[in-house]
Amino acid sequence: MAHVVADLLSDTVTKPTPAMRQAMARAEVGDDVFGEDPTLRTLEERVAGLLGHEAGLFTPSGSMANQLGVRLHAGPGVELIADSLAHVVRAELGAAAALSGITSRTWVAEAGRFRAEDATSLMITGVGPYQVCTGVVVVENTHNFGGGTVQSLEEIRAAREATRAAGVAMHLDGARLWNAHVATGVPLEDYGRAFDTVSVCLSKGLGAPVGSVLVGSSEAIAEARVWRKRFGGGMRQAGILAAAGLYALDHNIERLRDDHERAHRAAEAIAEAAPGSLDPDSVQTNILIADVSAAGWSAADFVAAALDAGVRLYAVGAAKVRFVWHLDVDDAATDHAISVVRDLMLLRTRERTVQGRTGR
Amino acid sequence: MAHVVADLLSDTVTKPTPAMRQAMARAEVGDDVFGEDPTLRTLEERVAGLLGHEAGLFTPSGSMANQLGVRLHAGPGVELIADSLAHVVRAELGAAAALSGITSRTWVAEAGRFRAEDATSLMITGVGPYQVCTGVVVVENTHNFGGGTVQSLEEIRAAREATRAAGVAMHLDGARLWNAHVATGVPLEDYGRAFDTVSVCLSKGLGAPVGSVLVGSSEAIAEARVWRKRFGGGMRQAGILAAAGLYALDHNIERLRDDHERAHRAAEAIAEAAPGSLDPDSVQTNILIADVSAAGWSAADFVAAALDAGVRLYAVGAAKVRFVWHLDVDDAATDHAISVVRDLMLLRTRERTVQGRTGR
Amino acid sequence: MAHVVADLLSDTVTKPTPAMRQAMARAEVGDDVFGEDPTLRTLEERVAGLLGHEAGLFTPSGSMANQLGVRLHAGPGVELIADSLAHVVRAELGAAAALSGITSRTWVAEAGRFRAEDATSLMITGVGPYQVCTGVVVVENTHNFGGGTVQSLEEIRAAREATRAAGVAMHLDGARLWNAHVATGVPLEDYGRAFDTVSVCLSKGLGAPVGSVLVGSSEAIAEARVWRKRFGGGMRQAGILAAAGLYALDHNIERLRDDHERAHRAAEAIAEAAPGSLDPDSVQTNILIADVSAAGWSAADFVAAALDAGVRLYAVGAAKVRFVWHLDVDDAATDHAISVVRDLMLLRTRERTVQGRTGR
Amino acid sequence: MAHVVADLLSDTVTKPTPAMRQAMARAEVGDDVFGEDPTLRTLEERVAGLLGHEAGLFTPSGSMANQLGVRLHAGPGVELIADSLAHVVRAELGAAAALSGITSRTWVAEAGRFRAEDATSLMITGVGPYQVCTGVVVVENTHNFGGGTVQSLEEIRAAREATRAAGVAMHLDGARLWNAHVATGVPLEDYGRAFDTVSVCLSKGLGAPVGSVLVGSSEAIAEARVWRKRFGGGMRQAGILAAAGLYALDHNIERLRDDHERAHRAAEAIAEAAPGSLDPDSVQTNILIADVSAAGWSAADFVAAALDAGVRLYAVGAAKVRFVWHLDVDDAATDHAISVVRDLMLLRTRERTVQGRTGR
Repeated sequence: MAHVVADLLSDTVTKPTPAMRQAMARAEVGDDVFGEDPTLRTLEERVAGLLGHEAGLFTPSGSMANQLGVRLHAGPGVELIADSLAHVVRAELGAAAALSGITSRTWVAEAGRFRAEDATSLMITGVGPYQVCTGVVVVENTHNFGGGTVQSLEEIRAAREATRAAGVAMHLDGARLWNAHVATGVPLEDYGRAFDTVSVCLSKGLGAPVGSVLVGSSEAIAEARVWRKRFGGGMRQAGILAAAGLYALDHNIERLRDDHERAHRAAEAIAEAAPGSLDPDSVQTNILIADVSAAGWSAADFVAAALDAGVRLYAVGAAKVRFVWHLDVDDAATDHAISVVRDLMLLRTRERTVQGRTGR
Repeated sequence: MAHVVADLLSDTVTKPTPAMRQAMARAEVGDDVFGEDPTLRTLEERVAGLLGHEAGLFTPSGSMANQLGVRLHAGPGVELIADSLAHVVRAELGAAAALSGITSRTWVAEAGRFRAEDATSLMITGVGPYQVCTGVVVVENTHNFGGGTVQSLEEIRAAREATRAAGVAMHLDGARLWNAHVATGVPLEDYGRAFDTVSVCLSKGLGAPVGSVLVGSSEAIAEARVWRKRFGGGMRQAGILAAAGLYALDHNIERLRDDHERAHRAAEAIAEAAPGSLDPDSVQTNILIADVSAAGWSAADFVAAALDAGVRLYAVGAAKVRFVWHLDVDDAATDHAISVVRDLMLLRTRERTVQGRTGR
Repeated sequence: MAHVVADLLSDTVTKPTPAMRQAMARAEVGDDVFGEDPTLRTLEERVAGLLGHEAGLFTPSGSMANQLGVRLHAGPGVELIADSLAHVVRAELGAAAALSGITSRTWVAEAGRFRAEDATSLMITGVGPYQVCTGVVVVENTHNFGGGTVQSLEEIRAAREATRAAGVAMHLDGARLWNAHVATGVPLEDYGRAFDTVSVCLSKGLGAPVGSVLVGSSEAIAEARVWRKRFGGGMRQAGILAAAGLYALDHNIERLRDDHERAHRAAEAIAEAAPGSLDPDSVQTNILIADVSAAGWSAADFVAAALDAGVRLYAVGAAKVRFVWHLDVDDAATDHAISVVRDLMLLRTRERTVQGRTGR
Repeated sequence: MAHVVADLLSDTVTKPTPAMRQAMARAEVGDDVFGEDPTLRTLEERVAGLLGHEAGLFTPSGSMANQLGVRLHAGPGVELIADSLAHVVRAELGAAAALSGITSRTWVAEAGRFRAEDATSLMITGVGPYQVCTGVVVVENTHNFGGGTVQSLEEIRAAREATRAAGVAMHLDGARLWNAHVATGVPLEDYGRAFDTVSVCLSKGLGAPVGSVLVGSSEAIAEARVWRKRFGGGMRQAGILAAAGLYALDHNIERLRDDHERAHRAAEAIAEAAPGSLDPDSVQTNILIADVSAAGWSAADFVAAALDAGVRLYAVGAAKVRFVWHLDVDDAATDHAISVVRDLMLLRTRERTVQGRTGR
């Protein structure tokens, strides 16, 4: 493997900076299973406040934060509904069913874009002799496999109105809510208050090494705390990790703007090099998904060729490749990535043209 | 409640005839938990043979037959995929997740019509560090909530090819496969052989009081037998019930044709009385779903008014009403139902016209 | 396999008599999933009344009745406690954990004999940050693998007092409660009222082909009805089976006394032939467990040899053999069984004596 | 709450030292979900090596390490057996059943002392039509609620022989295996090799802030890695935490001897002050459980009174109090605790004597 110049594999790969490490080394800690870690408590309260909720709970992963969130609103034989590419139904190894017996149905959404109508037309309420009962609608914002799509607050609020009337809860998978906030200027609290529970991640764009936070009512979070222990997520002196989260909240939210700009700049370059591979306007945040088949590549081959040239990417299915910007990819690395990708795109396009001419 | 003249609530309401009761009374029985009930064994072998499979297993309900079927192909955190109205994800109280930890995703299908493309584009294979893995595709034929829709054998075979290549199993929810067979003339075995496992129901159109049969390979059925016991479905001298099933196979398959004809006759009458409430050509088997909102009714009000006039129906959501024909609804009852429904449709239509004229 | 003269394998093997079959053939039925089977309703109400409870629910098996019972009092991560040989933890394939996520701890009880102290010393109450919480104590009466042991009403009431104070429920696995009632003269209602829920079986000593009934409060049974559907136990015209149950309640309770007398008679004969193989006074009802190793046999060999001589028995572990009396084993069959068992016991004892003398 | 001079609540309360914090601050890290954290990899390999196994897996808690361990050897409806006070069945919120559908039975063990006979007599093997099948025996060493009891390697090996013959796995809950090793001199590897999987904890006696390690075969650990993700335990740059674990392995194993000596010194003092409250010889490691009822106290009152005097303890049930030594309790703190406890014990004893004399 060549030296990686631009690691665009995922925004989870960021490494803590020296300043963040110092914050961790100085953290005041206690045993959180007994509720005695002051740094953790500060982080939980701060995130809850930012999102307009009463209480928060630190978890070792975003998956656990989501799984606790849906567990509060559903249980064995009760249903969660979401779009078919949502992280909670597609990228958490079926945990909702495996750990909590939660059943699910989904709809297919273009670029993961949330529309209230899709959710409400699937929703089933009332307990009958055999029909499932919908317990929770999950919205992912921004939408990872949709390509960093920002969700419409208007659609969310329309769904909120319908679900409230029906007694159905709403959970926000806000692993990258920070990106939606920075991209739109909508206050975090406005997003947060539209949901019963929200998970946010500290170890993606924000750059902390480990951890997510689930927020909700005090009652809900108290119940989630018991389930976190049951799931094996009760950590002891986790204030070490919380200190990195607090540092990230202080220093790394606004800078997501840079990631978005770099992603958009790359999108325009790629679209120019390989028309049809993506629409630059669809790149709203730090994620870019390009269809490399338009330039004659399979996703796997493209990813391998890019890696040889120092650019790490991720294949999404057979034809698409995902690029994710984060705080360890600066302007120079972005330039390198653009250059590599442009060359690869043109290479194949040229090869095919030659093949076409020579009659092969 | 008025005397019910035409009970179109469901084809599950049929009562055993005197001849079927005599078959039950004479049945030779044994303890099936120890594998010693000869009548049950005969039924299981016969159904397996009809569907082109090695072995069969009697279950107390169609839900249990489906749940055992999907349990063979998936487990905790593994996925089943189906359309969003499929009985297995919508009308079995979330059992796949609750009992087996099976997660699910769905697509939205017009009238429940199965298309290979919908299934294969959702399917995920290969074990990764976080993605779910699809274990089984479920097809429902005929499709209950789709309105008795018959599935295309061509689409099924296209999906079969793709799933086989991917190592994904296919299960047929054939609760009403008898109806599909009678409607199309496709041999039961042709449907059966396209799937790894098939469930069929004896207590719907066939008129037996209790029971379904799951078929598959000998190995699969041996495993299902253990899970049936775990699910609490191990019955003792169940040959009593099996005898009714055998009687039904001998006498009640071909007569489903009558149910289909009656349903189609009613469909034409309703379409004439209330244009826009349904397309008569969409009524392929014994189920008819009409949109009564076209005639100014809510589903609940329509069902109540019909019941007052001796016709029992089922509301599907807010605007649609389901009619199901079976062996306890003859021509006279069908005529009565048609007459009642026509009157109700015209009544509201007339009322609305009057209201329109008087300016209300 | 020789012709079976005395089938002492289990009291589940009984076959319905002609009179019981006629009762089934005449039964008035309806669709029980819609709550419309009158015979089933009569049976459920009658059993509830006999046991001093508000409502009842018919199930296809005793396992399902028990599993629904414990499901009402516990759920994922909540605990049931029982003795280590109890049917609910040992002979239902781990269903409480598999289907409901219920965890369990047990104590070792001599002959399955229930003592309040064993239960209360294991019980954990109150929700802490990590300890399990006991939801339900299960008592089995009579105790199958304990050898048909009748439980003390005094011990049950002592446990009831302690569990009530602690907010822990009690479930009675009364598959053979009829036998305990006949053996002791304690009214069924007295046993029944000491528990929150009770399951009784119609297809063991009572001789019906299929079915058990769970009783409890109206609210509990309404919830159990939903779970029964989820477990796949919702049957349609199950009044056919219920009619057999009603017949059994009318005709087959008092005659259990005969089974007990035959078992006791056999116990005395066996104890005489093979001293040390069992204590005749421990045979309180229709089950007899003899230690055949005392006479030089392994359980498996003994069962095989008895079967060759027309007596069907069940091996319990390596050294013990179980005999169960029921309405298909009369005095003559009992005499045959006694004679065969005596011969087998003496045979080996004699062989060993000879071996001893010849110095082998 | 008074200033806590001696925090004997649990050995989980230890705080990282400045040197350990520096090790964390300097740790080289990567994204462990992609398998790229070098420090974590080093820790996992080192612990596996210490215990004589091929591979290791870091987890956020000891509960998760145990739950992954048993998940490898059992699944829905399969059984784990252990003593009734074992952490895995009593103090992990029923996770084995809730998350994995694993059923359990237990035996009652004096002081949690493991005897092969208790396990093998409960064990059930072979798949039958209804009996559960034992998948795994769990041994806890040292035994927490048993009072820090060290298990006999001879008994473990006897069980290993019997379980191997029966195809049953063995898992060691070695949260405090370090203490057993230091107390007995038995090499860690000797303990480790007697089991299929072993969990050890870094955040109890060893003083790291967070984390446990599960070890086993490479194949087992690869499967556990997938389940860890499903359980929500996949962390990103967890090398920060692993660095603390490596530091602890280097510096904090041998010093457990000091904890044991302090515990034993306290045991002798307490036994002298309150004869009958404990047997000093039963205190084998760092845990001491005293029966304070012998001195006229309830556990809750004693714990409250001790806390007022600066000594934090833990009530185990109504009559017993647990003291746990660890690296944040030195000789001076131990002296303080002894003095406080002695005073409290004598106080009540004196009061009762006075009451006795005055005839109250």
